[in-house]
Formats: sequence, structure tokens, C-alpha cells
Amino acid sequence: MTARARKALEEAEVIVGYHTYLDLIRDLTGGREVVATGMTGEIERCCRAVQLALAGRKVAIVSSGDPGVYGMAGLVLEILHQAAPGSRLPVAIIPGVTAATAAAAALGAPLMHDFAVISLSDRLTPWELIARRLELAAQGDFVTVLYNPRSHGRQRHLHLAQEIFLRYRSPETPVGVVRNAGREGEEVWVSDLLKFADLPVDMLATVIIGNSQTRVLDGRLVTPRGYRL
Amino acid sequence: MTARARKALEEAEVIVGYHTYLDLIRDLTGGREVVATGMTGEIERCCRAVQLALAGRKVAIVSSGDPGVYGMAGLVLEILHQAAPGSRLPVAIIPGVTAATAAAAALGAPLMHDFAVISLSDRLTPWELIARRLELAAQGDFVTVLYNPRSHGRQRHLHLAQEIFLRYRSPETPVGVVRNAGREGEEVWVSDLLKFADLPVDMLATVIIGNSQTRVLDGRLVTPRGYRL
Repeated sequence: MTARARKALEEAEVIVGYHTYLDLIRDLTGGREVVATGMTGEIERCCRAVQLALAGRKVAIVSSGDPGVYGMAGLVLEILHQAAPGSRLPVAIIPGVTAATAAAAALGAPLMHDFAVISLSDRLTPWELIARRLELAAQGDFVTVLYNPRSHGRQRHLHLAQEIFLRYRSPETPVGVVRNAGREGEEVWVSDLLKFADLPVDMLATVIIGNSQTRVLDGRLVTPRGYRL
Repeated sequence: MTARARKALEEAEVIVGYHTYLDLIRDLTGGREVVATGMTGEIERCCRAVQLALAGRKVAIVSSGDPGVYGMAGLVLEILHQAAPGSRLPVAIIPGVTAATAAAAALGAPLMHDFAVISLSDRLTPWELIARRLELAAQGDFVTVLYNPRSHGRQRHLHLAQEIFLRYRSPETPVGVVRNAGREGEEVWVSDLLKFADLPVDMLATVIIGNSQTRVLDGRLVTPRGYRL
């Protein structure tokens, strides 16, 4: 957590968030009003936060990772715009460490070169668009970070992603998987494009597929930037 | 800066870095040995840090943003591998807030959907590969973050990138530019694909090109995730 995020939490009168994330910061929320909601309650959560803020309260809404990457930041701004278009309510989006860079750090240095970030969740995005982006990222030799790689109800997407990448990259391409990146209980696996889908990849995992230059050096993923050593 | 980064600086015996970045954290380096190098001294800097660490010193090497995104992390691991292959020297890569998410937060919430990160610097990468990745990112309707968008010696690349995107996206596509993202003196502009290249974009700037869904709401860039409100 950054110093700026901690300060915002300390200054807030009300703290709103998904209960699992609020549990992670329980030592910082003491004495304040806390509004906890379930995982799929994103809209409800943001509406509550916006209503409280429009009523004059100082509200912090908590995301894990970075609120600006598949997080709550966009929904807060959309809901505020609907509720009070043109409002001058001050909103600070406080950036954090997103799963892509937390997972990269745990694996070594795979994001030293151009990369793409793609969510495999088709809850809000048609699979055809996701598949097309995977194809283009694979074609462009982008290092590729997969968010929401697999859930109980969605087992096949990771294999489809793997098939797409195998059309453009060698089966030996290094792939890293990190569960709970940057959190307690972090787990790290270095694998390859042929075998990574057999790892325990779930919604807590982030997958990083190397590009054609990515190597495993002493157990760590490294994508060279191109310096001549 | 995260709590973990601050702790690592406090625990280091020697702090190595580019002098401009060391100036930003002068209040944290007091009393310790400091090794400062110039901007293009990346290899020298990492070699010094690795040598000192192999000699038994506790060394911190400082990057701005996230060391794992076009930063020093990869070079440190490559140089360590060359100097002492198979070494068990503990190396911790400590993730931070990279310019992509710091700039996104300053602009609103443009990274709510899949995105690509591309550096326009051809110092270490052939321009043909950069141009191809720009083309594929544009085709895939990725929100696209440009690092190192323009330098004194490299004025044309930003216009070439603009031309590529104009082939696939409307001239009204929202584009944000942030100078000194997340630092003192931060400057923020909300523009569009037709006009953004006329802004004072330089090596301190990060450019975020919206996708087909990105909107400007009350002066802020927002890419909807797809929730029905």
C-alpha cells in the first residue's frame, strides 16, 4: 500500500468496500463507519459511496491492487456523472500496485518490454472480443498478462487462450503464474506455454505469458530490454 | 511509494540510482553510502549494484515508477546471471506504481478495460516492431499507453503513432497526456486523437489513447467496463 492510500483511509469518515478487501485492512479502519458488500455488489457499493459523498461525507472506496485497472474507479465516475452531472465533488483516484506488476515482481522481470493486459472474464465482455485481442497480442509478440484467468464457472477460456498463443509462440515460451500476488500466501510458479494451464490457476491468479525473447534465468522470468551486455 | 519500498531503503547499506531519482528521495537516504550515475548509465549502475551485493553489502537500486516496467529489474537479473550464474544471492523486486496507472489515475479511469503498453523509444527496439505493435493495439481496440512518447532527438514517432491510430479510431477518441505522473509538478491534459500530438509531450509525459468506448465525463477520461447502470 502506498503512503497516499494509507493517508486517504486515515482521513475518511466512511470506508466502503468488498468485505474480503476490508478484512485485509482491518487495522486501518478502526473507529470509522464501514459499509461492506458482497463480491458482485459493485454497482450497489459505488452507489452507496457516491450517495454518501454527495451528502457531504468524506468517503473512501477500497479496491485491491490499483482501482484504475478493472477496478472501481470507472464505475464511481460513471455513477457520479449519472447522479449529479457536472458535479464539482472532488474525487481522487489513488493509484496502487496492480496485479500485473505485483505478479511480474514475484516472477522476476517479465514486463521489461511492451505488454498487453487482457481479462479472460466474459461477464461484461463478449468472448469474441477477448479472443480477438488475445490473437492480436500473440501476433504482436507482446508479453501478455491475463487477469481473471479462470473461475469455477469458466474453465475453458484459459485453454482457448493457450491454443491461440501456441499458434504464434513456441511451446517452450516461459509462462509465470502467481496466486495472491503481493499478498499474504503468495504462490509463484514458473512454467511454459505447453504446461501452465495444468497449474492451479483460479480467480486469485495472474498469468504472464512471455514474448519470444523471454528467458528463465536462475529460476526467474526475464524479458531482456535489449541492452548489449 | 509503498511501505515495502520505504522499508527496503531504510534497511539498505548502499543505495544506487540515477541521480535525478535519488534527489526525489533525499530525505530517505541520509547517512547511507549513495552511488549516483547519469541517465544512460544503466549498465554501469546495475554492474556496480551487483558487484557490491556479491561482495556482501545490502544494496538497494532505485527506479522511478515500477522497476519491473521498462525499469532496472531485468538488467539487474541479467547482469547477476552473467556475473554469477546459479547464484543464490537474494534479489527482491519491489513493485511500485508505474506511470501507466499513475497517469490513468490523474486522468480519471481510462484503464478499466484491456490495454496495451508500448514504448516509442527506438533506442533498444527497431521502429518497425514498435509500429507493428501500435497497429495491432489499434486494431484490437486496446486502450493504449505510450511510454517515452517523444524526446529531443525523436520528434516524429508520436506523429507516426497518431497516424496509425487514426486509421482505426475516430479523431474524437479521447486521449490523455500526463507529465510527471504522480510526482510534484504533475500536469494533466484531456485531448483527442486529432489534437494531442500538439501538446507539450516529452520524455516526462505518458500518453493514454482511449478505445472506442472511452468517454470524457465531467472532464475525466472513463472507459466503461460494461456494467449496465
